Amino acid sequence: MNAEELRDLEAQLSEQFDAIKQRGLNLDLTRGKPSTEQLNLSNELLGDISDKALADANLRNYGGLQGIPEARELFSKVIGVKPEETLVGGNSSLTLMYFAAHFAMHLGVEGPDSAWMYEGQIKMLAPVPGYDRHFSVSETLGIELIPVPLLDDGPDMDEVERLVKTDPLIKGIWCVPRFSNPTGHVYSDTVVERFAQLGKVAGKNFRIFWDNAYALHFIDDNAAQLANIMDVCRKAGTEDSVYIFGSTSKVTFAGAGVAFLGMSERNLGNFSKLLGMTQIGPDKINQLRHVEFFKTYEQLTAHMKRHAELLKPRFDAVLKGLEEGLAGTGAGQWITPQGGYFISFDTLPGLATEVVAMAADAGVKLTPAGATYPYGKDPDNKNIRIAPSVPSIADIEAATEVFVTCVKLATVRHWLKNA
Amino acid sequence: MNAEELRDLEAQLSEQFDAIKQRGLNLDLTRGKPSTEQLNLSNELLGDISDKALADANLRNYGGLQGIPEARELFSKVIGVKPEETLVGGNSSLTLMYFAAHFAMHLGVEGPDSAWMYEGQIKMLAPVPGYDRHFSVSETLGIELIPVPLLDDGPDMDEVERLVKTDPLIKGIWCVPRFSNPTGHVYSDTVVERFAQLGKVAGKNFRIFWDNAYALHFIDDNAAQLANIMDVCRKAGTEDSVYIFGSTSKVTFAGAGVAFLGMSERNLGNFSKLLGMTQIGPDKINQLRHVEFFKTYEQLTAHMKRHAELLKPRFDAVLKGLEEGLAGTGAGQWITPQGGYFISFDTLPGLATEVVAMAADAGVKLTPAGATYPYGKDPDNKNIRIAPSVPSIADIEAATEVFVTCVKLATVRHWLKNA
Repeated sequence: MNAEELRDLEAQLSEQFDAIKQRGLNLDLTRGKPSTEQLNLSNELLGDISDKALADANLRNYGGLQGIPEARELFSKVIGVKPEETLVGGNSSLTLMYFAAHFAMHLGVEGPDSAWMYEGQIKMLAPVPGYDRHFSVSETLGIELIPVPLLDDGPDMDEVERLVKTDPLIKGIWCVPRFSNPTGHVYSDTVVERFAQLGKVAGKNFRIFWDNAYALHFIDDNAAQLANIMDVCRKAGTEDSVYIFGSTSKVTFAGAGVAFLGMSERNLGNFSKLLGMTQIGPDKINQLRHVEFFKTYEQLTAHMKRHAELLKPRFDAVLKGLEEGLAGTGAGQWITPQGGYFISFDTLPGLATEVVAMAADAGVKLTPAGATYPYGKDPDNKNIRIAPSVPSIADIEAATEVFVTCVKLATVRHWLKNA
Repeated sequence: MNAEELRDLEAQLSEQFDAIKQRGLNLDLTRGKPSTEQLNLSNELLGDISDKALADANLRNYGGLQGIPEARELFSKVIGVKPEETLVGGNSSLTLMYFAAHFAMHLGVEGPDSAWMYEGQIKMLAPVPGYDRHFSVSETLGIELIPVPLLDDGPDMDEVERLVKTDPLIKGIWCVPRFSNPTGHVYSDTVVERFAQLGKVAGKNFRIFWDNAYALHFIDDNAAQLANIMDVCRKAGTEDSVYIFGSTSKVTFAGAGVAFLGMSERNLGNFSKLLGMTQIGPDKINQLRHVEFFKTYEQLTAHMKRHAELLKPRFDAVLKGLEEGLAGTGAGQWITPQGGYFISFDTLPGLATEVVAMAADAGVKLTPAGATYPYGKDPDNKNIRIAPSVPSIADIEAATEVFVTCVKLATVRHWLKNA
């Protein structure tokens, strides 16, 4: 397009944008949380559990730091470890991750002398774009984050290996290995294999924070599978180098689910010793509720199919809107995820903040630009995380239309400026 | 008694002791936890909560870091603060205490620069005998514990004030102000007043860890009341110097209750900012269950009366056994508590370990001697914590008889040795 064509297009898009603003929309694509319909799939958890709970008074009393055996058995399968390598906790895997990072930093993964903090300015690798709450944990604990690019098959492992070999103060890496937040990527088998080798070349007490938050959260029936990192690590003799996390936050109730972790028995012993200083045990009644609700791993995965049925049309609505509005325009790129909770969109470099602001102006709330990067700073200012799980299809369609208009308008103005 | 009388008595008690051993008892007075009958008082919590829970989808979803408003309102009354000064969390007040101590130590009560750890070897005061899990938190975090004697009306405040004024690295003090664990003492109004003044003379960022674990846990209807420390601190202008903790662990279910804390709004803001890095929110459904179960503070206190009815005969059985067996013998001292979960017994100096070992030998498990002191070391080796809440009255009577025999035998042998 020449400058005049661009000016015409800008005028036309400006008009569209003004018209949208008149509509006084109030839509929200920020929150990666289940919709009410999804929550309703698990309402049985709210029912009477007296019969089962009264059978053993210990369920109501103190104790059982590592969770009830039935829950350890069931959820170990979700994260691909042995029941005796599994700890089932309270309602938040973030808390388990926080404890794991805090213990490693301040108290030591193998006794007080092994605390990371004694070695100097500790760092963790952050594949980007990534999950802001992972980054916040590191930032809070005074752990510097080093971004590494997330490629289609996982983090740039050449870069990861180079960094880890070079700097023994790099003590960990954050991962969402299946349906990465926000890109939806699934780490390839080769990448998982290379992860299992990291423990051999990294500084001492290096730990992979493998947040398998979306282990079962496929949208597409044929979604890519993730290799079992614990198996691969065991073969490599590096099973102490990985901490695996998961939860039912997006399986049952986001606020009242159960969280779990998988670790080598050696790690679990050390972790439990410290966790036992912070609590006597988890809410075993809620664990029982979950075990009774699912009964088997097969029923748990069948349950996830019902989530997929609710999520897929919402993702499709966004993708259709992007496709129809932006395909072939050069105004942005996005990834079609096979699972997870997000669609990751890249504007042209430098435009994300503007697009988010414009959308807000037109009544569509988006996650702040930069949120998917450490310290909230996207160096290219291009990544936007779209979360379509909560709104109705009609609202998603409307919101995507607004979004597409904002992207186009910001892009055309950018081209005009540089024409 | 002369040496011969002592030898006769020793022979007679030895015989009794051997006879007891033949009985093959297996009794346990170690655990400060509710009995099954006590748990049964709250079985309604296991019932169907669908109606109330479904009324607001947010209850099942993420969020609400400080707890649901109804729970903050109800439980604020237990710890004597305003609802807006109350945070209701998960199932463990120990976790809230751990976070409070860890945040203060490593992350700062008022931003990173205020972290205690930057100032040197941090210390906390530990009134003794006290609660081992408090001590473990400090020990785990590398905080040195300085014991101060617990007197009948609370900690030796002359000593507390002297220490706190002298050493600015003393950053906190652990307290169980009503029905102290293990002695059952209630801090007097004067002591509470003096606590409220500590913030004025202590080093910066000093915090009182006021674990009001037994706020409502009276056994005796006319048990002494505890002054409201937040009110007193507010008058003194030191409301930022106190953190108050409580829970329903010994009100509803020990493992599946709710925990809460009370702090000045300024402290709560700072605490919540950090807590928000560790979790998105608590299990709001369990909070709802509790609110629906109790409905009012009056019903909550009425519920505690039913606990007292179950506990009082158990305490009486121990006290009767001690009175009958040991009164006037000079072989030990004990305190008749008006509430809480323990009877604190002092042998003659140096005999606690032996008495505990003898009792174990005769089939009665007691908390290890020293457990009520920092680092497990009772300098006088005399304090033994008796926890009578769980066994049946008959078992408590039998166990107390064994205990009394062990105390007598150990004492007589001690006298003989020193005769």
